[in-house]
Amino acid sequence: MNPTIELLKSHRSIRKFTDQPVSRELLVTLIEAGQAAASSSHVQAYSIIHVKSPDNRKKIAELAGGQGYVATCGAFLVFCADMKRPTEAAENSGGRVVRGMTEQLLVASVDTALMAQNVAIAAESEGLGICYIGGIRNNPQAVSDLLGLPSHVYPVFGMCLGYPAHEPDVKPRLPVEAILKEDTYSDDREQVEAYDAAMRTYYGQRKGGNKDATWSQSLTPLFDTKLRAHMREFLIERGFEMK
Amino acid sequence: MNPTIELLKSHRSIRKFTDQPVSRELLVTLIEAGQAAASSSHVQAYSIIHVKSPDNRKKIAELAGGQGYVATCGAFLVFCADMKRPTEAAENSGGRVVRGMTEQLLVASVDTALMAQNVAIAAESEGLGICYIGGIRNNPQAVSDLLGLPSHVYPVFGMCLGYPAHEPDVKPRLPVEAILKEDTYSDDREQVEAYDAAMRTYYGQRKGGNKDATWSQSLTPLFDTKLRAHMREFLIERGFEMK
Repeated sequence: MNPTIELLKSHRSIRKFTDQPVSRELLVTLIEAGQAAASSSHVQAYSIIHVKSPDNRKKIAELAGGQGYVATCGAFLVFCADMKRPTEAAENSGGRVVRGMTEQLLVASVDTALMAQNVAIAAESEGLGICYIGGIRNNPQAVSDLLGLPSHVYPVFGMCLGYPAHEPDVKPRLPVEAILKEDTYSDDREQVEAYDAAMRTYYGQRKGGNKDATWSQSLTPLFDTKLRAHMREFLIERGFEMK
Repeated sequence: MNPTIELLKSHRSIRKFTDQPVSRELLVTLIEAGQAAASSSHVQAYSIIHVKSPDNRKKIAELAGGQGYVATCGAFLVFCADMKRPTEAAENSGGRVVRGMTEQLLVASVDTALMAQNVAIAAESEGLGICYIGGIRNNPQAVSDLLGLPSHVYPVFGMCLGYPAHEPDVKPRLPVEAILKEDTYSDDREQVEAYDAAMRTYYGQRKGGNKDATWSQSLTPLFDTKLRAHMREFLIERGFEMK
């Protein structure tokens, strides 16, 4: 295994950070590494808000469901899907522009995720720890208001960065045989059962918070209610009309 | 700059490959590195179809808009957002399950992109080149039929992998000042203008296919028609109803 693959496989979310700040210089290096990711038709449909205001960080920590590390980590970023810049660029060079297509929502969301993952890896390669904060979608309108996001821009997720002050275990993943299929989609119930057993063992033994549950059981709260049912209306409101 | 960041910053899409195959062993290593990426609530909402059938690779090359390297690269993967596995897992462990939420489409698409970007980086760290194939969304229903994708699974993009047989330039990215904003969203028209000039120079000088266009001009064909207008109906048909 080469050192880069070793680094990728050592990922775990970090939620406790030392006081050491993340320098502006390092942050720029990480974002530039992020920008080097592939982008659909080179559209680069993303913007990142570096939230420095302690007040706003506290507010976002609350809005994200009480995730205190949003306020205390070395740097907090909000990754936004941005269709404003590319559509305005096309318009300003004389193009007629159609907005609000479902395809554009996908392109911008995927572009943002690819670039963010590069930022995550670059950060980890420099000894930082990171944690994605999907919880900003709990209250995406309030977060958008705090950050002054214009139309055709929406916050996909946040990311905490900083120097790790704990060393959590790496969580086991689904068996690769469940994920990687040959030529056609195939049933993976058997692998999921094996994984359920492995995750029950992991949850029972892990540092910092045991629970008695399989992977399948741990997913039930995600689907038994309409989690983040506001997302549809929120996206339409922001100009991502899913036409 | 550490070697990992150097690797990230050296990315360019590869579209010509040598005959050297990609071994099954290496592919498994790359997918495992992909799975190590963060996943929303550990839901791991993705599956990868390794398309080995030469017939299907030729068909997908055509369906993606005549991208011959889909048929000729060392390995071709289709990355699918998969909400079937996690929702069935929750159901099988006794949970009541709500499907078709917009939030679930986002979670699965983002999960898939984060994992794919890890695969891309792992591949590049092993000397392979890659190219994302968004073109599979030109004919997503036909691609889904070829791969036997069930409901609640949709193909987000493909990826060509193989050993590079050309050495394209690294494309310049938007100025980091346009992308990285402090505390609130700020105007970036000035940076876009500077970038337009830089891209015109790049397009005029690059190896393999010059053109006389700014970045803004190059975007106009993307937005002047309803590109992939079928995506909304396609996703609904697949059970991603964007409720």
